[in-house]
Amino acid sequence: MTDFKRITSKDNAFIKRIALLQSSARERKTKGEFVVEGLRILLDCYENQVHFLSLVITDEFLNRHSQEAQKLSKNSQETIVVNDAVFLKISDTKNPQGILATVKMPKTDAAEIKKNGRYVALENVADPSNLGAVSRTAEALGIDGIILSSNGCDPYSPKALRSSMGTLLRMPVIVCDDFTATLKNSGLSLFACVVSGGKAITDVEFDDGSVVIIGNEANGLTKDVTDIAESITIPMSGRAESLNAAVAAAIAMWELVK
Amino acid sequence: MTDFKRITSKDNAFIKRIALLQSSARERKTKGEFVVEGLRILLDCYENQVHFLSLVITDEFLNRHSQEAQKLSKNSQETIVVNDAVFLKISDTKNPQGILATVKMPKTDAAEIKKNGRYVALENVADPSNLGAVSRTAEALGIDGIILSSNGCDPYSPKALRSSMGTLLRMPVIVCDDFTATLKNSGLSLFACVVSGGKAITDVEFDDGSVVIIGNEANGLTKDVTDIAESITIPMSGRAESLNAAVAAAIAMWELVK
Repeated sequence: MTDFKRITSKDNAFIKRIALLQSSARERKTKGEFVVEGLRILLDCYENQVHFLSLVITDEFLNRHSQEAQKLSKNSQETIVVNDAVFLKISDTKNPQGILATVKMPKTDAAEIKKNGRYVALENVADPSNLGAVSRTAEALGIDGIILSSNGCDPYSPKALRSSMGTLLRMPVIVCDDFTATLKNSGLSLFACVVSGGKAITDVEFDDGSVVIIGNEANGLTKDVTDIAESITIPMSGRAESLNAAVAAAIAMWELVK
Repeated sequence: MTDFKRITSKDNAFIKRIALLQSSARERKTKGEFVVEGLRILLDCYENQVHFLSLVITDEFLNRHSQEAQKLSKNSQETIVVNDAVFLKISDTKNPQGILATVKMPKTDAAEIKKNGRYVALENVADPSNLGAVSRTAEALGIDGIILSSNGCDPYSPKALRSSMGTLLRMPVIVCDDFTATLKNSGLSLFACVVSGGKAITDVEFDDGSVVIIGNEANGLTKDVTDIAESITIPMSGRAESLNAAVAAAIAMWELVK
């Protein structure tokens, strides 16, 4: 506990930088860092060898969870202790637990897409809760990774990380500036999920080396994507608009891997 | 517009009663009424012949959406105009649209379970968002109805209704005080979804007259239920704990109807 640094001012440059990392996707992208908040997800990082650039804890957290704080601090380049008021400035929640860490953004490159893998790709999915839910399902079903267009929501936003229950930190996540080109060059068989008019997903034989592609919640997939992929549809007897993007993705992933 | 009543006091008995209906599941059950809030879901009720006992609107809503207000008021036994402050007292949201209605709770009886239907049953599912999500998926996939244990979350709570996007008002919903007995006497084939050890769901041939049963988010199904049903499992190669209850239900319903 001896070498913990202490910051007492909300105007400290380090504190301001963390607040910015929490609120700005651009800042996260520029700095190549993001914030992970909460004990459970940080312990999960620790177990998965995700190292921390910095760990920030409150006095109260340190008193109440001394053992965990010590353990997690060994996983961090530096540990900073702050008071509740300072922590509130950098927390993304209203009632913070009093612990967060900054983490280096993993560089998962399109080159790492396995030719025989089974992937889910999301084009411009806007709601971080949907991304988080897709990530959870993808991990449960043993999907090899998640391919994202860079125009969609940020996988390293506090909300996406939270709703993914930390799975976004364990899954290979590939964020592409040129989504269509990445898919085209991936060597995978491309299946575009469309609301109607595609081949029934129950009639598709998925092989190793396939990706199911899900579009934006309101607008679906772009023509760029449907032009290069086989269109597939989940047959529905009820109201199609009731099927949430995360649930459509779950059914598509299930058919892909089962 | 002539016969709209006006209430100006937050302490009015009618206003207090609506506030209580919003906050208390017991009050909803006792009175057999619940509150539906927001223009979109109320228009949806209107189109589905769900009548209102009372419609409450703000002056501002009436000015801005005169046509919709008139239309919806014809669907209601009475229409009450209030100011913003009064409305805030009875609204479940922080930034209310300024329109809500009270609705009689539909009495959907266990006797209405169709012997050849395909159902989803939730035992003690606690999170209204999960219930709402299951209801949306059930409607999309053409499931015949939702059977709920009365110990689970209230399908007529503001949060469940909101996250169901109104589907809970369109689906047959059967709430059972004795969940196990209702299932046993339903004449349906019973399939209990368990995390592991059940027959692989991919090996199950579902016929007409079947129900998939999903348990509580943390504790799963009770022994009472697993004792009377065939246990089935969604085979997973990843971490099973990542599969959210609503997604597990979605995959089970998909296999049930596809």
